[in-house]
Amino acid sequence: MTTRREHDLLGDKDVPADAYWGVHTARARENFPITGTTIAAYPHLISALAAVKEAAARANAELGLLDPEIADAIGEACREIRAGALHGEFAVDVIQGGAGTSTNMNANEVIANRALELLGHAKGDYHVVHPNEHVNLGQSTNDAYPTAVNVATILAVRELSESMVVLERAFAAKAVEFHDVLKMGRTQLQDAVPMTLGQEFGTYAVMLGEDRLRLNEAVALLHEINLGATAIGTGLNAAPGYAEAACRHLREITGLPVVTAADLVEATQDCGAFVHLSGVLKRIAVKLSKSCNDLRLLSSGPRAGLNEINLPPVQAGSSIMPGKINPVVPEVVNQVAFEVIGNDVTVTMAAEAGQLQLNAFEPIILHALSESITHLGAACRTLATKCVSGITANADVLRGYVENSIGLVTALNPSIGYAAATEIAKEALATGRGVAELVVEKGLIPAEELAKLLRPETLARVL
Amino acid sequence: MTTRREHDLLGDKDVPADAYWGVHTARARENFPITGTTIAAYPHLISALAAVKEAAARANAELGLLDPEIADAIGEACREIRAGALHGEFAVDVIQGGAGTSTNMNANEVIANRALELLGHAKGDYHVVHPNEHVNLGQSTNDAYPTAVNVATILAVRELSESMVVLERAFAAKAVEFHDVLKMGRTQLQDAVPMTLGQEFGTYAVMLGEDRLRLNEAVALLHEINLGATAIGTGLNAAPGYAEAACRHLREITGLPVVTAADLVEATQDCGAFVHLSGVLKRIAVKLSKSCNDLRLLSSGPRAGLNEINLPPVQAGSSIMPGKINPVVPEVVNQVAFEVIGNDVTVTMAAEAGQLQLNAFEPIILHALSESITHLGAACRTLATKCVSGITANADVLRGYVENSIGLVTALNPSIGYAAATEIAKEALATGRGVAELVVEKGLIPAEELAKLLRPETLARVL
Amino acid sequence: MTTRREHDLLGDKDVPADAYWGVHTARARENFPITGTTIAAYPHLISALAAVKEAAARANAELGLLDPEIADAIGEACREIRAGALHGEFAVDVIQGGAGTSTNMNANEVIANRALELLGHAKGDYHVVHPNEHVNLGQSTNDAYPTAVNVATILAVRELSESMVVLERAFAAKAVEFHDVLKMGRTQLQDAVPMTLGQEFGTYAVMLGEDRLRLNEAVALLHEINLGATAIGTGLNAAPGYAEAACRHLREITGLPVVTAADLVEATQDCGAFVHLSGVLKRIAVKLSKSCNDLRLLSSGPRAGLNEINLPPVQAGSSIMPGKINPVVPEVVNQVAFEVIGNDVTVTMAAEAGQLQLNAFEPIILHALSESITHLGAACRTLATKCVSGITANADVLRGYVENSIGLVTALNPSIGYAAATEIAKEALATGRGVAELVVEKGLIPAEELAKLLRPETLARVL
Amino acid sequence: MTTRREHDLLGDKDVPADAYWGVHTARARENFPITGTTIAAYPHLISALAAVKEAAARANAELGLLDPEIADAIGEACREIRAGALHGEFAVDVIQGGAGTSTNMNANEVIANRALELLGHAKGDYHVVHPNEHVNLGQSTNDAYPTAVNVATILAVRELSESMVVLERAFAAKAVEFHDVLKMGRTQLQDAVPMTLGQEFGTYAVMLGEDRLRLNEAVALLHEINLGATAIGTGLNAAPGYAEAACRHLREITGLPVVTAADLVEATQDCGAFVHLSGVLKRIAVKLSKSCNDLRLLSSGPRAGLNEINLPPVQAGSSIMPGKINPVVPEVVNQVAFEVIGNDVTVTMAAEAGQLQLNAFEPIILHALSESITHLGAACRTLATKCVSGITANADVLRGYVENSIGLVTALNPSIGYAAATEIAKEALATGRGVAELVVEKGLIPAEELAKLLRPETLARVL
Repeated sequence: MTTRREHDLLGDKDVPADAYWGVHTARARENFPITGTTIAAYPHLISALAAVKEAAARANAELGLLDPEIADAIGEACREIRAGALHGEFAVDVIQGGAGTSTNMNANEVIANRALELLGHAKGDYHVVHPNEHVNLGQSTNDAYPTAVNVATILAVRELSESMVVLERAFAAKAVEFHDVLKMGRTQLQDAVPMTLGQEFGTYAVMLGEDRLRLNEAVALLHEINLGATAIGTGLNAAPGYAEAACRHLREITGLPVVTAADLVEATQDCGAFVHLSGVLKRIAVKLSKSCNDLRLLSSGPRAGLNEINLPPVQAGSSIMPGKINPVVPEVVNQVAFEVIGNDVTVTMAAEAGQLQLNAFEPIILHALSESITHLGAACRTLATKCVSGITANADVLRGYVENSIGLVTALNPSIGYAAATEIAKEALATGRGVAELVVEKGLIPAEELAKLLRPETLARVL
Repeated sequence: MTTRREHDLLGDKDVPADAYWGVHTARARENFPITGTTIAAYPHLISALAAVKEAAARANAELGLLDPEIADAIGEACREIRAGALHGEFAVDVIQGGAGTSTNMNANEVIANRALELLGHAKGDYHVVHPNEHVNLGQSTNDAYPTAVNVATILAVRELSESMVVLERAFAAKAVEFHDVLKMGRTQLQDAVPMTLGQEFGTYAVMLGEDRLRLNEAVALLHEINLGATAIGTGLNAAPGYAEAACRHLREITGLPVVTAADLVEATQDCGAFVHLSGVLKRIAVKLSKSCNDLRLLSSGPRAGLNEINLPPVQAGSSIMPGKINPVVPEVVNQVAFEVIGNDVTVTMAAEAGQLQLNAFEPIILHALSESITHLGAACRTLATKCVSGITANADVLRGYVENSIGLVTALNPSIGYAAATEIAKEALATGRGVAELVVEKGLIPAEELAKLLRPETLARVL
Repeated sequence: MTTRREHDLLGDKDVPADAYWGVHTARARENFPITGTTIAAYPHLISALAAVKEAAARANAELGLLDPEIADAIGEACREIRAGALHGEFAVDVIQGGAGTSTNMNANEVIANRALELLGHAKGDYHVVHPNEHVNLGQSTNDAYPTAVNVATILAVRELSESMVVLERAFAAKAVEFHDVLKMGRTQLQDAVPMTLGQEFGTYAVMLGEDRLRLNEAVALLHEINLGATAIGTGLNAAPGYAEAACRHLREITGLPVVTAADLVEATQDCGAFVHLSGVLKRIAVKLSKSCNDLRLLSSGPRAGLNEINLPPVQAGSSIMPGKINPVVPEVVNQVAFEVIGNDVTVTMAAEAGQLQLNAFEPIILHALSESITHLGAACRTLATKCVSGITANADVLRGYVENSIGLVTALNPSIGYAAATEIAKEALATGRGVAELVVEKGLIPAEELAKLLRPETLARVL
Repeated sequence: MTTRREHDLLGDKDVPADAYWGVHTARARENFPITGTTIAAYPHLISALAAVKEAAARANAELGLLDPEIADAIGEACREIRAGALHGEFAVDVIQGGAGTSTNMNANEVIANRALELLGHAKGDYHVVHPNEHVNLGQSTNDAYPTAVNVATILAVRELSESMVVLERAFAAKAVEFHDVLKMGRTQLQDAVPMTLGQEFGTYAVMLGEDRLRLNEAVALLHEINLGATAIGTGLNAAPGYAEAACRHLREITGLPVVTAADLVEATQDCGAFVHLSGVLKRIAVKLSKSCNDLRLLSSGPRAGLNEINLPPVQAGSSIMPGKINPVVPEVVNQVAFEVIGNDVTVTMAAEAGQLQLNAFEPIILHALSESITHLGAACRTLATKCVSGITANADVLRGYVENSIGLVTALNPSIGYAAATEIAKEALATGRGVAELVVEKGLIPAEELAKLLRPETLARVL
């Protein structure tokens, strides 16, 4: 392998001649052989880093601190990366020590070397464009990295939000489709009172809508960035006006309404917004998991279960039981939910472990959040397209449960009182007879009036 | 023991003659011998239940469904409870099955029996005032209980918010007091660049302020109630106009701007707002714990630690080491934080376990949230009054660290470049010499200019 | 209030004249107003502290370091406490800073004052019997407290283990009772292949038995104590031979086979055994919760659910739905499980937060473990006596599911192959017809042979 | 793309002609587009699946149920896979619904097609060797998959155990190297009493050794397998003698002492051993994280920190602060620990969600455990080689802390009493003077005797 020699605090080190990354990345690759997955797995992060670096270069040029030609080359390299180029050069592990320094230096090196090429120089000619002195000018990992994480997370959450809309619409469509399908509602898994299957599916749609509102509120907090804070928030080495200019350029480049945090010392060490977002992702996971538990329960059977609805078959269910179809799509969503809930604990512990002026554990926070966001999005889309949109109702089974139900007696409370109704219910349960039959037999309510009271449509209160 | 005989679905049962609770409470006491702590431990919940029951009685009277005399007696009993009476009669365990039915029936029974007394009847004369048919009229546990839990939680969070303000002010006062105390900032526990102790304490105040905003947003979601939903949200057995009237009366009684949820079926089964609130409480816990970790670190010593600040001594620290003073108040706050973080997992699991039209596990959600809220409030007040307000700074030690620091070299990047600065840092570290001395010796910057660059006040960017 | 004046590192302080606790307890009560629950809530801890103090006194007397008369008085006071006396004097909060120092000093003070009384002196005459110099002689909080926590936990776990046996036997009795009740087994909530209800209940018994083995292994680790370690494990101020003697006396007093840890520095800071025990408690909780989920599912209905078994009714289920019976006992067990799982996170965070030579957060670890152990024990006993032992089977319903099942086709794989069996299953599902009927109609297997293959007893493999 | 047509329960589907996987895998790939990572990421799982399939084929041949030629071809295919071949054909997502059916069918298909090739047939000629009827003969996913997961986990844990030994030895070597380096011990971050740096590092080694014992105990539980249970544990469709034979062959093939579980119905649904193992992995994570927290604390500085030890520099620490070296290796280990702790919650939730005769969520349990085991192993090796083995001590700094310490006064308790020692400590703290100096000045102990008492070597109890 042809190599070029680079130099850092620890001395010389050879890196592959054609690598855009340099000595800092090389050392990080040796130091963090943890997962085998590199940050290239997070395209939003790579794009966001490029956006931050371009914003910084523009701001520095504007303030006369950076040669315009160098700034332009840096900007061009960043735009190429945001267009999808060179992502494979982002080669450090997703789990890494150093508070993101390795990720930031990886970006600085790749951008410097690409800028060098654009300016007609060889890779490694850092006296012309230097990873630290030019690409990282006016920045520290401690402001550039969290800013990029914020931007990347905003972009990822946007996609999740869109996936949630897809699922919400799938549920809402079923709510309309099933709006007149009567069924027994259940509390504590015991027969309760009638409702419609449309109401049941409508609930899932409403829940998702509310969760999406909360998600949007949570992600709004991430628009507050600390670019210009440098090492600890005091802005040391950032020129006057730099924070404002860099933020303005980042707004233009990303189209996101980012603003500079009011207290940069606080913003540099505070992981509250990540903990908050993770809590909201957990909320979404909890609701999704509950909805999938319901779908699996309602479709249980076909003969020894509730058998109220049918999930569309998407694969054979068993390697031994012929004809068995399993609720595999809800099951995979449940598992994503369990993962997200576990990730929330990871984020919590990482955030709590911050010390003094910095939280050194943002890389695992980014990793956990990225997985949660991406997997939740995939789960929503899969659930919508592979399951919910194909659900059918067994209307006869559903209505049979209502007609046979003891729970109907609840509707007679206002007419005969809780105590008398209790006696009817007890007798129905003991004898296997129907509620209406017993009420009429005992002369408690005339048959005609009873029929009116027990119209399921009235009971479900849908009209 | 004198007893009176009561009756329910399961048959007859004797209860103590002087007990305001009745047969349902008696059975629940036998069924749930879990913690030994009764719901009387949650005064806000008792008050909230009384408020809900009064609101329902007023609404029912207004709609002509309840005899005004009975409604008045119920109202009077509820007001007495809200004034602090009869809390000891709330006798079911805080951890209970049944989705809160036992708590609701406990309230119905106590209120019915107190109303009976007020009307000149004996306890147990339920044909006059019946726990179910009068006190619970138009309600189900599934709407009355969650509504009470919401109201109770709003009241509890209000107290927490006030306690957070006390702590925020204590930190803010120290930020002012220490505004000109120079110190070394640290990232990853390594010396970074200068700042002031005021900036450090200001950060804790800002964090708390932000957390409080989030808390207020989270609790706002709880103002949406499902009173009128009855069993599953379809409002079966609640008269037309009841939901609106009951909500209006509850607003008047509590002074809280509660509103009826738009979709009552959804609202009856959804625990999202509790998961959300728990997530925010966890966020507060994470930040409080981090702040306390810092306080313990900064006050480490007195001779073999950082020794930057002194926490006020509040008790002897050791049963064996004379004169030892320990950071016991931050330590207790850390432990409350760990409890809150654990409680969040409990709330998460309970919420995820909801099935179909109801979540049967709200009692443990209430229990976990109540503990988290109350303990966090106590922790904030204790930390403020027993610790933060008495903190003093060792200004000489703090300034000594700055003057002796290698991190000062960061400020020379713009003048001598990152690479040269690195060499200076390495030599300083290896030889134990000072940065300034080396820079001057090597003729990199004239002494006079250097002195200006290294003015710590400039470095901390506080002026 | 009459008071007596005591003195400590911080100066003078008055305590109630009749209190057995003194100045250290008084300060701790002011410093930790967190939960309002005192350590008196943990009788095993109080007993264990008394056992440790008596063992230390005996060891010190044996080594000639403590006047035998004083040692005897201390011993007598400790025995009284272990017999149940003075528990109300243990007055510090269960959540406290200081690594247990307040609990240890509370014990030292109560024992010293009771010993003083026994010797005919007034409370507070510490020149005769001193909390630190006599009761705490040769000890530090950092060895006396964890040793007491270990002993207390061993005693508490013993009770839990007994409660688990009660539940295990209740399940095993049902396994016998239901050994010939045929039913459909289910995987992924879909009908699978036949089994017996006895096999189903036997599983719960076996699970509990295995969990109990793990619990016993986990608690065995707690028999390793660090008494004699003093402050950090180096044994400073403990006389030669003291650790051995104190451990020997503690063995005699408690009857537990405790041993001195091999590496006292390690043992003093390591919370591994608590994390381990908490993990096992979580394992128990997970299995209990799963079992209760099953019980609730199998008893769902009565008309719109599986309706396979009946849980004994223990209270009316609803304040609005007459005759409704809910699975309230399994529900309360689920909630205890969620609490235990949350507590495990609390223990984990507290253990991780230990620093250098000590973990200061043992009080919350003790608190969380105590709650988990006690509540799990109560849950097991309640589940056994209020639910499992009264469960009945709906044998007709259960057999009906088997006879009607498509899953029977699985048994034909060896005769007709997976592919042909799949076609039969598809047709049965589409047409609502029976598997046997279709197989015979298509001439795949002669009716007689088929009847033999499909004997449910054979399918369930129970004979 | 050339394709071949395959058929399943849902109908026909084309798969790439050169794919070893078939229709079931094809559908699973479409149904679970969650992480983008396939099970090929778990080579131990692929090997274990191949071992199980070979064991089953041998057992079936032995029992006369499978043509020896086919059994041999299956065995050969399995051995090739275990030697590393065809791993890329394991193409289903690591997060999948269906209780592992897709993984099992992926294995069945790959093995069938490779066996077909070995027998001179084309891929897809399933009438010769069929994925279900031959490769899966006598098995269900519900026994084959968990058995493979157990075997894979045992193999993975073995590697982790070896990595822990490497780290344990690195710590132990430092314990020897630093055996006579005196230092102050600290409790609650406050100066306590003297010890040696060797004792401190020895503790980390002892902790790891204990953790390793627990890990080995936990993994021992996984040697109990349910092969032969088929769908739900009743062994339906497995021939008499099959379970015994398959287990015996699996023992021979893997060299692992696996045994058939005593109760197969229980074993098929119970995830207790995974929860247990996850709890132990969490325990390891907690201890590793605590050790790394200590390393970061002890190496804090260089000038404004404890500065007791130096971690070997492995990369430049900052993109802005020249010369800064950060504890990046302990930091990455902390983050792995946070991940493992989060994964434990994921495993817990997945285990709790099992229903009736099966836990459908084993795929996420496998995923979470695999990540935890692999990452912990990488973390241990990295910590050993990149950090611990290069640690050096600043012996002068360490001894200075001891000599200057107030904590020395603890050693005088036996001579002058706790009360007098407290007064000395207070004066030393207030005046900044030394303990020894004050004791002599006050005539409490003659200088000569004092010098003997305060010999640090004695205090640390190392000689």
